[in-house]
Amino acid sequence: MIDLPRTVDFDGERVILVDQRKLPQELSFVECYDIECVASAIRDMVVRGAPAIGATAAFGLALHSKRIGAEGRDELLKELRRAADILRSTRPTAYNMFWAIDRVMRAAESSKDAEEMRRRVEEEARSIAEEDVRANIAIGEHGKSLIKEGYRVMTICNAGSLATVWFGTATAPLYTAKMQGIDFEVYVLETRPVLQGARITSFELKRAGIPVKLIVDGAAGYVISEIGIDLIITGADRILSDGTVFNKIGTYTLSVLAKEHGVPFYVAAPTSTFDPLSRREDVRIEMRDANEVAVINGKRIAPDGIAILNPAFDRTPPENITGIITERGIIGKPFEEKIKLIGIRGASP
Amino acid sequence: MIDLPRTVDFDGERVILVDQRKLPQELSFVECYDIECVASAIRDMVVRGAPAIGATAAFGLALHSKRIGAEGRDELLKELRRAADILRSTRPTAYNMFWAIDRVMRAAESSKDAEEMRRRVEEEARSIAEEDVRANIAIGEHGKSLIKEGYRVMTICNAGSLATVWFGTATAPLYTAKMQGIDFEVYVLETRPVLQGARITSFELKRAGIPVKLIVDGAAGYVISEIGIDLIITGADRILSDGTVFNKIGTYTLSVLAKEHGVPFYVAAPTSTFDPLSRREDVRIEMRDANEVAVINGKRIAPDGIAILNPAFDRTPPENITGIITERGIIGKPFEEKIKLIGIRGASP
Repeated sequence: MIDLPRTVDFDGERVILVDQRKLPQELSFVECYDIECVASAIRDMVVRGAPAIGATAAFGLALHSKRIGAEGRDELLKELRRAADILRSTRPTAYNMFWAIDRVMRAAESSKDAEEMRRRVEEEARSIAEEDVRANIAIGEHGKSLIKEGYRVMTICNAGSLATVWFGTATAPLYTAKMQGIDFEVYVLETRPVLQGARITSFELKRAGIPVKLIVDGAAGYVISEIGIDLIITGADRILSDGTVFNKIGTYTLSVLAKEHGVPFYVAAPTSTFDPLSRREDVRIEMRDANEVAVINGKRIAPDGIAILNPAFDRTPPENITGIITERGIIGKPFEEKIKLIGIRGASP
Repeated sequence: MIDLPRTVDFDGERVILVDQRKLPQELSFVECYDIECVASAIRDMVVRGAPAIGATAAFGLALHSKRIGAEGRDELLKELRRAADILRSTRPTAYNMFWAIDRVMRAAESSKDAEEMRRRVEEEARSIAEEDVRANIAIGEHGKSLIKEGYRVMTICNAGSLATVWFGTATAPLYTAKMQGIDFEVYVLETRPVLQGARITSFELKRAGIPVKLIVDGAAGYVISEIGIDLIITGADRILSDGTVFNKIGTYTLSVLAKEHGVPFYVAAPTSTFDPLSRREDVRIEMRDANEVAVINGKRIAPDGIAILNPAFDRTPPENITGIITERGIIGKPFEEKIKLIGIRGASP
């Protein structure tokens, strides 16, 4: 079995989170006994990764419903709405969190008394977490056959267990192949500016017993052209109906290298990542704070007074992508048609 | 005029170097009184950049010839050979350094006594430094017309004034255009692992009054595809007779992006960078210490016990290069023929 902690859990009185700020030096946990603690954990990036944040918020509401002494239905609902607002304010662009909160709140609203509300809120939160794990395990099953003995696989950022409740998306085929005794190694791009590849993906692959080779982002071309890579797997933040993928900055560059060298380039993501309504031009790339680039480990690496452009994501066109590994199977080309066939409706925004 | 310090100098008793490890926070200098200090400065990257390293090594030999009490010709020559070996061991891929050392050593070997040897070694070292500055100014003259009003130019690493004795190679056309009143901006790749783009190129372009936009290496694809780049100029550590360029890790990736998007991709380097004797497969890529990747600003960013691959350079094939800007003019395709025509003989290995 793969020895990885659950990123997010709820034991009935505490929300328990891997403290990702301490990685890779130390695997420690934050235990939250109230909603304020859960909100801070999301805000301060104790937890990151869309599915992990969604499950954390859902468990936060379950925790709050149990802790609050409210006896009447309306009083408890009012309290949950207040908690939902606190959570929503932490990461205003975290769509998956909004979706998870909405799901839990709908369960709360359709409950007839406080007792039922407490039960249904907790059930819904647990469902969200379990569905995530199940989807990841299914992604692993569908994707495992892409990985063959002796392969050199490459990945960027962390679409790993620690970005989800457990098992990860891009990492799921790796873990599944590993559990079946396939030997392979993974080249991990460090993924500036936040270094999720170096800090988190390296950590979890190593813990799972998979040999890691860490490289700087600029070395991807060297490794692909001079050493040879058999397969690239990345995650996705959003996938449009034509197969356009928005993912961590650097993914597009990697896809161009893959095309140049004929390396299969796969994206792994649950179908909840599909956004069938937006067009390419509708999706705004989030520009993040300049200090994320300019300051590393507390020290400034760039001169004062220069401009810094820090796009969080980039756009990989469908023609650069070989296939999309989902919990329902691997989607091949033509994506537009196949995505329609598989009947993906996407999450409500 | 462009306000930039001399990167390397020799005042007869000290080799004086801009301490590039302190940039961009502080412009300070290291003063070396012996060859061990000069060798450490090269090894520890107080000084970096092929031409600057070459001039530093040459001045190191001049310094050593003056400091060593050897009275006889053979004794002094033996001492200089020992010093040359110390220098050569510092950076095994620094082709320009080997060339500079050979030049100085030939001057030493053809001297008839110790007094002449000291004089000629110093003269040769000074010639190497002055020829570098003159070559860079000529590169600027030849390359300036590539830069037009309003252009967005991209560069990687530091092939700037601080990589040379003065004025730089990839930066020379930028500084020359700037002095002639052309307005343009430069997207600088931060260039992990050593961050020469963020630390050094941003520093010197800003000091020269050229608008800089700093990005992480992984954002090059985003900027080229979504914002648009008119021209890419990089330096070179070594250029083979067929136009194959060895340069900072990440250059090859950038050249693939340039090809994908039809962006002119120029390499700027003095003809001393040409190595007409080696074949592609002869050139060993220097693998540097894992801690250069794993530790940033004194703090480890990667888990212990994982492998880290840290190639210092990569190989850009001639088909990805539009032209090579040298002090003798811009070399276009076919490179093999044009490089022969221009009569480049290169250094002996």
